[in-house]
Amino acid sequence: MPLSDRIESAISEAIQLGQGGKAPPKLSSALNYAVTPGGARIRPTILMSVAMACGDDKPEMANAAAAALELIHCASLVHDDMPCFDDADTRRGKPSVHKAYSEPLALLTGDSLIVLAFEVLARQAKVDPMRMAELVMILAQRTGMPRGICAGQGWESEAQVDLSAYHQAKTGALFIAATQMGAVAAGQEAEPWMELGARIGEAFQVADDLRDALYDEATLGKPVGQDEIHNRPNAVSQLGVQGATSRLKDILGGAIASIPSCPGEAALAQMVQAQAQRLTPVAPAHSRG
Amino acid sequence: MPLSDRIESAISEAIQLGQGGKAPPKLSSALNYAVTPGGARIRPTILMSVAMACGDDKPEMANAAAAALELIHCASLVHDDMPCFDDADTRRGKPSVHKAYSEPLALLTGDSLIVLAFEVLARQAKVDPMRMAELVMILAQRTGMPRGICAGQGWESEAQVDLSAYHQAKTGALFIAATQMGAVAAGQEAEPWMELGARIGEAFQVADDLRDALYDEATLGKPVGQDEIHNRPNAVSQLGVQGATSRLKDILGGAIASIPSCPGEAALAQMVQAQAQRLTPVAPAHSRG
Repeated sequence: MPLSDRIESAISEAIQLGQGGKAPPKLSSALNYAVTPGGARIRPTILMSVAMACGDDKPEMANAAAAALELIHCASLVHDDMPCFDDADTRRGKPSVHKAYSEPLALLTGDSLIVLAFEVLARQAKVDPMRMAELVMILAQRTGMPRGICAGQGWESEAQVDLSAYHQAKTGALFIAATQMGAVAAGQEAEPWMELGARIGEAFQVADDLRDALYDEATLGKPVGQDEIHNRPNAVSQLGVQGATSRLKDILGGAIASIPSCPGEAALAQMVQAQAQRLTPVAPAHSRG
Repeated sequence: MPLSDRIESAISEAIQLGQGGKAPPKLSSALNYAVTPGGARIRPTILMSVAMACGDDKPEMANAAAAALELIHCASLVHDDMPCFDDADTRRGKPSVHKAYSEPLALLTGDSLIVLAFEVLARQAKVDPMRMAELVMILAQRTGMPRGICAGQGWESEAQVDLSAYHQAKTGALFIAATQMGAVAAGQEAEPWMELGARIGEAFQVADDLRDALYDEATLGKPVGQDEIHNRPNAVSQLGVQGATSRLKDILGGAIASIPSCPGEAALAQMVQAQAQRLTPVAPAHSRG
């Protein structure tokens, strides 16, 4: 099965868990709407790639971990789009959840997806309870407080921002979760995989800043110029387009160099390279001047 | 240690987990504000009482379970108070979290507390990984979709409401979690403990309806008449004050009768009886006419 099919199938199984029985129909539909069709599924792709590089000896664990991680990512998008944060009307080229359903349902969709992520992991206790527990720990720590994506968003309410804590929590956290959960799902230690995740996270942040500067709303499928509007730090405003592009390449080189020794090291380096090409934005004709 | 001290200590330890390191200060403070000082801590009290009735052989498990359950309850209060739901300015006699901090911080506080609840449980894997996994499962299922408190709130966005699914999810779910998690924390099976939780949940719903009808905002510490405003079903409007009071007594009698055979059965029956007296509102002078 191609990797992308494996990921979609794991996500779809997870979502079904939240929809059985006597569920309120609109919230049930909103869960599905928030998660499909997905974006690039980059976090579960990284997670699965690391698990496979580490031998993927219990594939059910990697499947559950990948689905759980993507549910958390989707939950964060739903909540971030809400009026009290980015107030974004569109996401992935369609109306955001609070626009398509309502604010109460968007709030509940995010909450339900967070909870579902942990349920999906807990169901794998029968396969390996200790790996499952570590997956729950990593996912919780990279989602909540004090150093997960909630902490990252929390920094945006502060007058004085610790920039390194902000970036690592806001964008880095779920990439660190991706590499560490992939390793743990396959029975390896989490710690040596932290640097790869952190570097991919940095690269992603710079790439996002570049896309925000170079693309228009129709191409991105979400509103542009949000950093400027919300006065958030941005690599392009600090380094310029060329500087940011060159920084992106450096970070990705460092990411590849940091891959721990493992059976599938070469294939994993290729995957990071491929993500790098995908991440690096091509300036569209009208902005090349 | 008195039970209430044991519960407060478990909750305080849990909150500290979410506040270490480089955490954004306002969100960190909001987590604490949302959880302390608490209300009656009725759900963790029930959980601990069941665990003790079942022998409480691994008290760390019961402590973690009680704290996790209370964090979820507090998270639900923070999100329910937000403008898109009840739009409540006060909670437990002080400004609600979005009033004291901001809407973004209230949203993040709820999210962080949900995540922290699962982290608190996962940390106990070293004590007993299989019990831990079952605690995560029960808590997730009674919090999220399709039959947890998120589902309960979700029903409020439907034109056609399945009343029994609505009540069991909205109020019953966390009481079922309380009795079942208490049993599982002490190494017992969850299933025989469902009825006790469900009946306590029903009793609580009726008692809440009575308080909503009999008390004023100053006494309750939160806005009254919310059911009427939001057109939600209410036992007092259906049965009258006397009818609802008598229904409350019947339900509590059934709850006590449903307690599974266990070493501390008699003490547990007493606890339910004590909660019953606490729950039953005394009509204040000005509303007796």
